[in-house]
Amino acid sequence: MRTSNLNMLFNPRSVAIVGASASPGKLGTITLLSTIAGGFKGKIHPINPNEDEILGLKTYSSVKDVPDEIDIAVICTPSISVSKIVEECIKVGVKFGVVLSAGFGELGEDGKKAEKKMAEVARGEKMRLIGPNCMGMGSAASKLYASLNFTIPKPGNASIVSQSGTLATFITIEASRQGVGINKYVSSGNEADLHMEDFLSYYADDPETKVVAAFIEGVRDGRRFMDVSKRITKNKPFIVIKGGTTEIGAAAASSHTGSLSGSNYVFDAVCRQAGIIRVSNYMEMIDLLRAFSFSSLPKGRNVGMVSSQGGMGVLAADACVKYGLNLPKLTKGSMNELNSFLPYMWSHKNPIDITGGTMDPTAFTRSLEVLLQQRDIQSVLCLAPIYSSYFDTVRAQISNDMRDISELIPAEMIEAVDEAAVDDLVKLKKKYNKPIVGIGFLSRRESNAVKLLQDNGILIYETPDQAAYVLSKLADYNEYQKGCSIWQSS
Amino acid sequence: MRTSNLNMLFNPRSVAIVGASASPGKLGTITLLSTIAGGFKGKIHPINPNEDEILGLKTYSSVKDVPDEIDIAVICTPSISVSKIVEECIKVGVKFGVVLSAGFGELGEDGKKAEKKMAEVARGEKMRLIGPNCMGMGSAASKLYASLNFTIPKPGNASIVSQSGTLATFITIEASRQGVGINKYVSSGNEADLHMEDFLSYYADDPETKVVAAFIEGVRDGRRFMDVSKRITKNKPFIVIKGGTTEIGAAAASSHTGSLSGSNYVFDAVCRQAGIIRVSNYMEMIDLLRAFSFSSLPKGRNVGMVSSQGGMGVLAADACVKYGLNLPKLTKGSMNELNSFLPYMWSHKNPIDITGGTMDPTAFTRSLEVLLQQRDIQSVLCLAPIYSSYFDTVRAQISNDMRDISELIPAEMIEAVDEAAVDDLVKLKKKYNKPIVGIGFLSRRESNAVKLLQDNGILIYETPDQAAYVLSKLADYNEYQKGCSIWQSS
Repeated sequence: MRTSNLNMLFNPRSVAIVGASASPGKLGTITLLSTIAGGFKGKIHPINPNEDEILGLKTYSSVKDVPDEIDIAVICTPSISVSKIVEECIKVGVKFGVVLSAGFGELGEDGKKAEKKMAEVARGEKMRLIGPNCMGMGSAASKLYASLNFTIPKPGNASIVSQSGTLATFITIEASRQGVGINKYVSSGNEADLHMEDFLSYYADDPETKVVAAFIEGVRDGRRFMDVSKRITKNKPFIVIKGGTTEIGAAAASSHTGSLSGSNYVFDAVCRQAGIIRVSNYMEMIDLLRAFSFSSLPKGRNVGMVSSQGGMGVLAADACVKYGLNLPKLTKGSMNELNSFLPYMWSHKNPIDITGGTMDPTAFTRSLEVLLQQRDIQSVLCLAPIYSSYFDTVRAQISNDMRDISELIPAEMIEAVDEAAVDDLVKLKKKYNKPIVGIGFLSRRESNAVKLLQDNGILIYETPDQAAYVLSKLADYNEYQKGCSIWQSS
Repeated sequence: MRTSNLNMLFNPRSVAIVGASASPGKLGTITLLSTIAGGFKGKIHPINPNEDEILGLKTYSSVKDVPDEIDIAVICTPSISVSKIVEECIKVGVKFGVVLSAGFGELGEDGKKAEKKMAEVARGEKMRLIGPNCMGMGSAASKLYASLNFTIPKPGNASIVSQSGTLATFITIEASRQGVGINKYVSSGNEADLHMEDFLSYYADDPETKVVAAFIEGVRDGRRFMDVSKRITKNKPFIVIKGGTTEIGAAAASSHTGSLSGSNYVFDAVCRQAGIIRVSNYMEMIDLLRAFSFSSLPKGRNVGMVSSQGGMGVLAADACVKYGLNLPKLTKGSMNELNSFLPYMWSHKNPIDITGGTMDPTAFTRSLEVLLQQRDIQSVLCLAPIYSSYFDTVRAQISNDMRDISELIPAEMIEAVDEAAVDDLVKLKKKYNKPIVGIGFLSRRESNAVKLLQDNGILIYETPDQAAYVLSKLADYNEYQKGCSIWQSS
């Protein structure tokens, strides 16, 4: 097994941006801006033979002219010039080259040979390469975000590697926007030297990384991928999107990064054996990144449900069944307690529908607590009683002369209801530490209440489908970790 | 077949809100506010024996005291009082009663008997009932939005009926927020008198309704449902969510509105035969409401694809195959034309990856036009070149002291790029009138460019999966309408 110490890649003291520029629209411009705006803790050296200073930074003609040691060279120049620049980097002891330039292996055999040769020369001299044809990399520890897509996320504990630069960007930024902090990201590009598996291997042992996610087009070494995946999943959830699962998609992948996609069925089997959570698109991946970043794991597949609105309960019950979750019966004790405060018309079973028949604002929370107390209920799914973003949405749509009328629905009152609900949910989460997942329509991105809940380990999703899916994946991973996995036996 | 003229329900001249109030948290308060804020064109009469005036409106003790004719009475009082109010309404010639009050058939046999009796009495006297246990109704023509959930959408051409009040609200408001105008909505509740099928029947013939959507828990009369569905789908797309598809979900549905869910397989067969587009959750429904509200129909399942970013092309190709779409080969003519302006590294096949190797901003549009020109390509899927919401998102996340640096990526320039892309896409859409569907990450709700595109018939979705799914459903409906449907033969 090849190993590689990537500590310096993620904790560099200095970085050179080769091809740095300040002209709008250039690769080297946005990469330099991204590195500066990200707040890199070390030194930034722009390299450009035609400039003395770019964006206030002293600029050198070549890496050879930089007086300090350079840990990373980010290369943004045309492909034709890259191999010479790499040689210069080797001479001055650069440790990592991040080659953003395209025009190599993705074009065919000649390009493959060129990048392979360049990688071999570099490796022989202890310089390692990322890319070529990649988007860049980021690291929360050093605040280095050297990206041609200006990919600067919120810092946190999820680490990403992607064989597609676009998807590295999309996943990183949308996850971040939905509150998931990112610890490291790497766009691995054509993988002339360092492979996706090298980054995964580092993430497996990285104490700062708690969740791992990957977009994969092709696996070069199946055995190694399996081994490194098992090392990850022993301690951390590992979520994967596999592109090129169909013949046509695979053909597209081959012209994209020159990788071989392999059989979809084989990949599925690998995922089951290695405890990898395979998802089919990036929004599902982000749903799970949120779940694994914030929620505790359920001890099993038994779900209690409560809502005040029947139709949603019906859909949620359907979704639970669809994703292999169970809805255990309410015990006599639970029934008695619920009967003591719910209106007579409540559903009298799990899912609990408290109905609109009660004006008692605590009925929802008390029902939730009854479910959390019942021993064979291991997680709870509820319709989140969060309303302010809904009313804000409606208000924003009605005509201006009617706005003052709609103000008669007092925003403060609705916000107070939201706040009380958040308080109650957070208390219950702390007290029982069972996963609580809510369905909160219109709330994915906008509501402060939803953000607060998430920071306290309570997840809100837009649909019953998403909520049940996420709960099932949390349960899957718990089973895998306990070693009694359905995955391994199937 | 029962028929019912619902013209007066959707075009009333006056409405009484029985149980109207101004006290926070009351059913009658928010329903009155909703009716006023919606801008109802006719007269509103609050009914409350304890008030002379509510929110500036003269208030009567009973419908019997109202001097004008009342077309609709919206009843928000406790269940115990409803039957007496209905009798009073009959006496003064009210044409429709919309009973929001809960506490009837959903509670069991006694409630069922009570609501059935009330409905029979009313029907005998030519007063028709909606509900009980419903959320209300809305109509763009009269601007009547009598809803206990303050459900006031943007007006337009999609009409909705839902057996769940919550889902009637959620679908209406989220569709509206995503730009889909709503023509009519009805929450049919327990359906003591008027059934979902009555509203569907009206929508089938309604010239203002161009797309129909329904949330269904149980079908009472399968034959009638089939007939009315066929009448709709002959001229308009009909999108349905069916709740209670599993045994547990069906049990939840039964305690919710007292309806029987029936077999999932039978329902699937009905959908295929009647050309109903069945979806599994409300976000899918809204994706399709957008598609059918704004896009033209593709003449077949052949899709051309173009992106500048390989990974997304791979996922989109996978998604097309998953949803039964074809990616035809590029003709010699198309190849020649593409070779004339794309960088040598382009993918040389469908999906077209123009790669990052060109700085020519028109390369994308020109490639798109080559696809649209090719005769056997019937729709186009692309990665939308819309960037401003992405940069806005990243900017919003980076620390304050770095904001000025990020301003060096000129917002105006990115907006100009967006505007040019929108212009080009709109021109191409007008010229070829083939469906154009784009994938635009981070753009579902925020971007003006996305709204502009949608208003011009070009749809943007967040994931390749959604985009391909939508294209496949547009193609399905086109096939159904041409009568050469795979649905009918399968």
